[in-house]
Amino acid sequence: MTDLTALNAITTVPVKLGDRSYDILIGAGLIDQAGREIAKRAKSVRVAIVTDETVAGLHLDRLMRSLSAAGIDSTAILVAPGEKSKGFATLETVTNAILAARLERGDIVVAFGGGVIGDLAGFAAGIARRGMGFIQMPTSLLAQVDSSVGGKTGINTAHGKNLVGVFYQPQLVLADTDVLDTLSPREFRAGYAEVAKYGLIDRPDFFTWLEKNWRGIFDGGPERTEAIAISCRSKADVVARDERETGDRALLNLGHTFGHALETATNYDSARLVHGEGVSIGMVLAHQFSAKMNLASPDDARRVEAHLRGVGLPVSIAGIPGDLPPAEKLMDYIAQDKKVARGALTFILTRGIGQSFIAKDVPPSAVLSFLQEKHPK
Amino acid sequence: MTDLTALNAITTVPVKLGDRSYDILIGAGLIDQAGREIAKRAKSVRVAIVTDETVAGLHLDRLMRSLSAAGIDSTAILVAPGEKSKGFATLETVTNAILAARLERGDIVVAFGGGVIGDLAGFAAGIARRGMGFIQMPTSLLAQVDSSVGGKTGINTAHGKNLVGVFYQPQLVLADTDVLDTLSPREFRAGYAEVAKYGLIDRPDFFTWLEKNWRGIFDGGPERTEAIAISCRSKADVVARDERETGDRALLNLGHTFGHALETATNYDSARLVHGEGVSIGMVLAHQFSAKMNLASPDDARRVEAHLRGVGLPVSIAGIPGDLPPAEKLMDYIAQDKKVARGALTFILTRGIGQSFIAKDVPPSAVLSFLQEKHPK
Ligand SMILES: NC(=O)c1ccc[n+]([C@@H]2O[C@H](COP(=O)([O-])OP(=O)(O)OC[C@H]3O[C@@H](n4cnc5c(N)ncnc54)[C@H](O)[C@@H]3O)[C@@H](O)[C@H]2O)c1
Ligand SMILES: NC(=O)c1ccc[n+]([C@@H]2O[C@H](COP(=O)([O-])OP(=O)(O)OC[C@H]3O[C@@H](n4cnc5c(N)ncnc54)[C@H](O)[C@@H]3O)[C@@H](O)[C@H]2O)c1
Ligand SMILES: [Zn+2]
Ligand SMILES: [Zn+2]
Repeated sequence: MTDLTALNAITTVPVKLGDRSYDILIGAGLIDQAGREIAKRAKSVRVAIVTDETVAGLHLDRLMRSLSAAGIDSTAILVAPGEKSKGFATLETVTNAILAARLERGDIVVAFGGGVIGDLAGFAAGIARRGMGFIQMPTSLLAQVDSSVGGKTGINTAHGKNLVGVFYQPQLVLADTDVLDTLSPREFRAGYAEVAKYGLIDRPDFFTWLEKNWRGIFDGGPERTEAIAISCRSKADVVARDERETGDRALLNLGHTFGHALETATNYDSARLVHGEGVSIGMVLAHQFSAKMNLASPDDARRVEAHLRGVGLPVSIAGIPGDLPPAEKLMDYIAQDKKVARGALTFILTRGIGQSFIAKDVPPSAVLSFLQEKHPK
Repeated sequence: MTDLTALNAITTVPVKLGDRSYDILIGAGLIDQAGREIAKRAKSVRVAIVTDETVAGLHLDRLMRSLSAAGIDSTAILVAPGEKSKGFATLETVTNAILAARLERGDIVVAFGGGVIGDLAGFAAGIARRGMGFIQMPTSLLAQVDSSVGGKTGINTAHGKNLVGVFYQPQLVLADTDVLDTLSPREFRAGYAEVAKYGLIDRPDFFTWLEKNWRGIFDGGPERTEAIAISCRSKADVVARDERETGDRALLNLGHTFGHALETATNYDSARLVHGEGVSIGMVLAHQFSAKMNLASPDDARRVEAHLRGVGLPVSIAGIPGDLPPAEKLMDYIAQDKKVARGALTFILTRGIGQSFIAKDVPPSAVLSFLQEKHPK
């Protein structure tokens, strides 16, 4: 009976990518179904669960029990929580641990954690034995609505965020919404920035709905699952149109060019800035910059800022604790970001709420003077 | 005039892989054409040349001159020669150097060296910015006939050879046969083992031709280019049939399961054993083991051994200098090699010269007792 109820509550979002298509399952209590869902799709596999110490402490036992109840042998690979784990050193450790567990090509690496774990474990799964089975079990809001979907994996280097990685699609995404209850309010808010992003890209009605219903999302009401499903559907649509980001997929980078520069500037120090916070500030900046370029009304920029501030997100560079390098240095980080082609900057700008577009040939000088204004030294 | 002669001498072998198809150009003096051939295919790109110190000392200037004559800006990334460079540490260094050179996604990483450079640079090109442009310029015989074709890239770990990597096809392969003149006789012989492999897999006439014409190949006669072209065609055929090694491509591993175990056992120490030497010993063992299993005539095993010994290659485990771990340990390495599924071993065995086949379910006990016989302690 309990099982049936749980099954009933599951929302399925398909990601259509030809022979790399897969489903995203979203619902309360999904961890307890994980063993069965995996066994249904893959016969007699072994599993390596990559997770971080925080998530492991809270939820790993339940996952391992669920797997073992389905007759699946599993081993856990733990890394330290936080963005610093997304680097070459941990990649090597995790990849070697997968090999040490003697997993074979058809066996499965499960990423069980936030976006850091998803990106890191996905990359390791993509290169161990030149590609193993891979399943995403996102546990942060950000990972459930964004990073677990679409197949981008990777690590950071001193040259910038996510500059090294592979496109590697999971064969299944299992998002248990219950685990969000243990997420810190700050991390929940950070994930919410990516939810709002989908509204700002091309779903103005969703943004309006968020302005009204955000409290239900934060309180774990039915709005939460609904917002996650809409977000996954938005992302799946874009990814299906443009898996390898040769066009439209770049829209998902709304707020990210500024955001990544701020993350690099704070040396990926989660105490100062986490990814979603960078995105929040970045989206506000993108709207303000669009207004400054006379592309959008300043009212829209103010509306975005008001909503994100309202949920408790930082909305300005000044909101980042500690010293930051000057605007010129931030500009350097932007130029090194991967959304750059031949000197001219490619930016996601907007004509208003839900009307984002890819702007090529943005003059770097305009960005720099805007940054100098927003971050005077 | 000189140019025309050089162009005339170029043999083109197509690799047919749908939208990942590319050409292999083989010929004398191709380095001097490299700039032009690249410029023809890719507009206004920048190039990072990954190479090793030995190859750089001998041939890098010419390559850079050729590029710059075609208006292509290039930067060189040097690593130490030898198998030890195929590891995580150098991968990180090379990938970071590509990023530090500020190459963009459409820019090109050129692998200029032997198979170590090809595997390492190809992997780095496949993961830097989640995939950059990539061209192979193989400079060892082994790389010209084998590793530069087919898109397997990767590094070694303590768990075994090539256990970490990606499938990443080059967009062009340029094999200048002139550079083989500076290759040491030992390395040339090692590459020859892979040439002979194509005969042993499924071209018995080619093997017979090699038995007659190997001196011409070693002396740099017209037979050399012919043998390279036949080898590339053989490999391209197999790869076109089965890019990701879900079937037939495994035939290319003839001799490699034993060979890799021996390479692991000698800790990738090039002074003791290089890859092609391991393959030579491995192919002899594969033929002997096939004979022992009553699959092939012992005469064929003797013929293979005689030819490979004749060109100066090692043909037995005893031919490896220094101490080796016991047969049981070699067996462990074999089990960890990636051509293993669920306990039963997959081996490339043979019914005779040019009649190799994929044998699944080879009993590990039979392999172990064969190894104990060949490597008593
Ligand atoms: N691949 C993509 O397409 C993509 C998209 C967006 C973001 N990202 C990446 O995702 C990363 C950010 O993801 P994130 O915000 O999830 O970071 P994260 O993985 O660091 O998780 C944030 C924190 O929450 C903790 N946590 C996670 N789930 C928890 C739970 N259920 N209960 C309690 N604590 C929990 C983690 O231990 C961590 O401390 C960044 O590296 C970013 O670049 C990738
Ligand atoms: N990717 C594949 O499909 C594939 C296939 C076969 C082998 N491999 C890999 O290839 C590697 C072996 O390749 P390799 O034998 O070319 O090794 P290598 O790259 O180490 O080259 C052998 C030696 O020859 C030197 N050298 C290369 N070209 C030279 C030249 N023109 N003149 C003078 N010296 C030169 C190098 O500096 C090196 O010392 C192994 O790591 C093996 O695993 C890969
Ligand atoms: Zn993001
Ligand atoms: Zn080989």
